[in-house]
Amino acid sequence: MPSDGFNPALLPAGLADLLPPDAAREAALVEAMLAVFGSHGYERVKPPLIEFEEGLLAGSGAAVAEQTFRLMDPVSQRMMGLRADMTPQVARLAATRLRGVERPLRLSYSGQVLRVRGTQIAPERQLPQAGIELIGADSPVADAEVAIVGVEALARVGVEGVALDITLPAMSPALLDAAGLAGEERAALARALDRKDEAAVRALAERAGPPAVFLPGLLAAAGPADAALRALDAVALPPAARAIADNAAAVIAAIRAVMPALRITLDPVEFRGLRYHTGVAYTVYGPGRTGELARGGRYMSGEEPATGLTVYPDAVLRAAPRLAEPARVLVPVGADPAAAAALRARGFVTVAALGAGDSAASQRCTHVLRDGEAVADPASSGAAAPFQTGADGAPSFTGAGSALSGKD
Amino acid sequence: MPSDGFNPALLPAGLADLLPPDAAREAALVEAMLAVFGSHGYERVKPPLIEFEEGLLAGSGAAVAEQTFRLMDPVSQRMMGLRADMTPQVARLAATRLRGVERPLRLSYSGQVLRVRGTQIAPERQLPQAGIELIGADSPVADAEVAIVGVEALARVGVEGVALDITLPAMSPALLDAAGLAGEERAALARALDRKDEAAVRALAERAGPPAVFLPGLLAAAGPADAALRALDAVALPPAARAIADNAAAVIAAIRAVMPALRITLDPVEFRGLRYHTGVAYTVYGPGRTGELARGGRYMSGEEPATGLTVYPDAVLRAAPRLAEPARVLVPVGADPAAAAALRARGFVTVAALGAGDSAASQRCTHVLRDGEAVADPASSGAAAPFQTGADGAPSFTGAGSALSGKD
Repeated sequence: MPSDGFNPALLPAGLADLLPPDAAREAALVEAMLAVFGSHGYERVKPPLIEFEEGLLAGSGAAVAEQTFRLMDPVSQRMMGLRADMTPQVARLAATRLRGVERPLRLSYSGQVLRVRGTQIAPERQLPQAGIELIGADSPVADAEVAIVGVEALARVGVEGVALDITLPAMSPALLDAAGLAGEERAALARALDRKDEAAVRALAERAGPPAVFLPGLLAAAGPADAALRALDAVALPPAARAIADNAAAVIAAIRAVMPALRITLDPVEFRGLRYHTGVAYTVYGPGRTGELARGGRYMSGEEPATGLTVYPDAVLRAAPRLAEPARVLVPVGADPAAAAALRARGFVTVAALGAGDSAASQRCTHVLRDGEAVADPASSGAAAPFQTGADGAPSFTGAGSALSGKD
Repeated sequence: MPSDGFNPALLPAGLADLLPPDAAREAALVEAMLAVFGSHGYERVKPPLIEFEEGLLAGSGAAVAEQTFRLMDPVSQRMMGLRADMTPQVARLAATRLRGVERPLRLSYSGQVLRVRGTQIAPERQLPQAGIELIGADSPVADAEVAIVGVEALARVGVEGVALDITLPAMSPALLDAAGLAGEERAALARALDRKDEAAVRALAERAGPPAVFLPGLLAAAGPADAALRALDAVALPPAARAIADNAAAVIAAIRAVMPALRITLDPVEFRGLRYHTGVAYTVYGPGRTGELARGGRYMSGEEPATGLTVYPDAVLRAAPRLAEPARVLVPVGADPAAAAALRARGFVTVAALGAGDSAASQRCTHVLRDGEAVADPASSGAAAPFQTGADGAPSFTGAGSALSGKD
C-alpha cells in the first residue's frame, strides 16, 4: 500500500468490480438478449461512451442532464458528457447517419452508462444497459412489439413469469386539463395521485368536478389489465383521455395476441416514470422480489414517434437462474496438447499446470487429464473446494463451485 | 438542428459510432474470443470504467497517465480517472479482492478504454480491449501459454496466418549495462537502435567496445525466430543478456510445441513498446496489411510476476472475414406469430410489418413469410437492394446486403 495511505481496494462509491463467475454470466445474458433482439430485426449500434454534451442532452437526454459527468475535450475545447443513458444516442443516430434508412427503423444496443450520483435505493453509478428502439412507427402494434420482444429476451435467459406493468403518463394530465384545473389546486391533486392517497384524491377531485371525479375510481382500478380497462370503459372520459384509453386497450390486445399468458397490469392514472414518455409506458417486473428488470414506452426520437425498452442487465443477473459451470480439468505438465484441445472442444475448461506445484486442488479443478480423458480428481471428490478471496476494505466471502465467486 | 448551430451528427475527434452490421460483428468477435480464453481457465472480471486515479495509474498504469481523462468525484471530492488501459485494473483486483486465490491466477476481461488524445496513426480515443492476464507465474511456459491462447482466439474468429513478433526489451539495456555505457554515449546508441540505423549502431558500438559490439549483428539478425536465436547463440553474451536469450529460446520452444506452424519472428535488440515489460514482449500481426491485432508480454502485476495479452477488437474486426448475414423475412400483418417464431428458431431474422406500408423492400427483407414458410420476395430477386444512409457532416456511403452498413 503506498505511503499516502491510499487503499487500492477502495473504489469510488457506487462503482464496483464484477468478479467471476458473475462477469461472464452478465456478458452471456446480454449477448443472449441481444440475439433475441437481432432475431426480430433490431440491428445493433454502438455509440461512443462520450459525446459533445449538446448531443447527449438533447431530447430525452434532458431527463438525465443532472446525472451526466462532464469532461473538457482538450482537442476541441468544448464540453463533452459521459453518457447517462443510451436512448438519446440512438435518437441522434436515427436522425443523422441513419436518416435515409426507411422507417420503421429497428435498432438495438448494449453498453455501460455512468451517473454522477447514486440514490439510496440505486447506489450504482455505473450501470449496464441493453435495449431496443423502434423508430418511425406510432401504432399500438409497435408498442406491443417492443414489450413482447423484451419479455421474450428475458425468457431466453431463464427469467420466466415476469409481469408487465403498463402506465399511461398522459391520462391524469388529460383529465386535469379537461377539468380545467390549474395552479395550486392542480398541483395538490397531482401530488395526491403521486402518493396514491385515495382519500385526498377523492376529496380534491370531488371539489374539482367532472371529469376529475373519475380519478379516485381509476386510481382504485389499478391492477390486472382487464379490470382496469373495464373501469376505463365504464366512465365517460373526455376525448383526449378516451383516445389514451383506447390506445392502451389496443396495445394490450396486441400483446395478448402473441403472449396470452403474460401477466399484464394497468395503472391508468399513475404518472411517475420517465417524464418524456408520450404514450404507454411500461415496466417489466421479475418474479418474486427480483424487482424492475426493464423499462420503456413511447417517446419522441427527435421529430419521430418511437417506442423503446431498456433492459437492466445487472437486475437480470440477479433474477436469472445460474447455469452449471463447465468442469475444470487440470492438464498435467507434459500432457498432449491435442488431448486438452479435444476436451475443450467437448465443453470442458482446461487449466494447464505450469509446474509440479500446480495441482487440481490449487487450480480449483474437479478433474485431471489422464490418458486423454477427464478423470475426476480423487482429492476433490468431484467438487472443487470452496475458497475465500481476500479483500482489503471489502468483506470476505466464500464462493462455492469451480469458479471464483463473489458479490460486490 | 438547434439554433446555436450545433451539428448533432458531429462527434468529438476520435470518437465514432459503430453501425450495423459492424457493431454486432465486433460484439460477436469479442464474445467468441472470451469463450476461448474461458476454455483455457481464464475467468472473466469486469472492473468499472472509472476508479480513483491513484489506483488506475499505479504500476503499469503509469504508462498511460498522460492519456487518462480525469474527473472530480462529487461524492468523495477526490480525483477519478477514466481508464485508458484495463491491465492495471486487473492487477489491482489480483492484489486485493483476489489476493487469497491460489496462484497462478488466470483472468480475462473485455471493455472500452478512453484516451485524452489520439495520434496521427491511431486517431481513436475510445478503443475496445479484450485480454488475459496470467498472474503469479514466471516460467517460459506461462509466457508461451498467453501467446498460444491469443493466437487460438484469433483463429476462432477466422483470423488465420498471424505472425507473432517477439522482442526482448531488456536485452539492449543489458548489453549497454555490461559495456558500462552511460550518459550521452548510451543515449546516442539507444537512439540509433530505436531508429534501426545499422550504420550508426555499428559506429557507436565499435567505439564502446565489448559486449556492445554484438549490437549491430543482433540488430541485423531480426527476423525468423530460429535464425535470430542462432545469432544469439553465436556470440558470447554477458550473463544477464544470456539469461534473457535462454528465456526467449525456452518461450519459443514452448510455443512451437503446441503451434509448430505459427510464424514467429524475433527482434533481439528492439526495445520499443510498453516500457513496463520485464521479459519477452510480443505483438501479433494479422495476415496481409491488417496490422497489429494484439500486444502483450511479461510484466510485474503489483509485486507478482505476470504475463498478459491485450487483443484489439477494432483491429480484429478489420482483419476477420465477414460471415453471411441471416436472411430477413417480412412477417405480413395478421400472420401467425408462431410461424414467425418457428422461422427465428431456424435462424431467420423476422421483421414484423406494422402496417400495410411495410414491404419487404422497405424493410430490406429478402423473404416474406407465406403459409408458414420463408418465400423469396419476387421484388427483391433474392437479394436486398443496397441503400444509402443520410448523414449530416459525414460522408454518405452505400451499403449492400441485408443489413445497415457503414464505415466511420
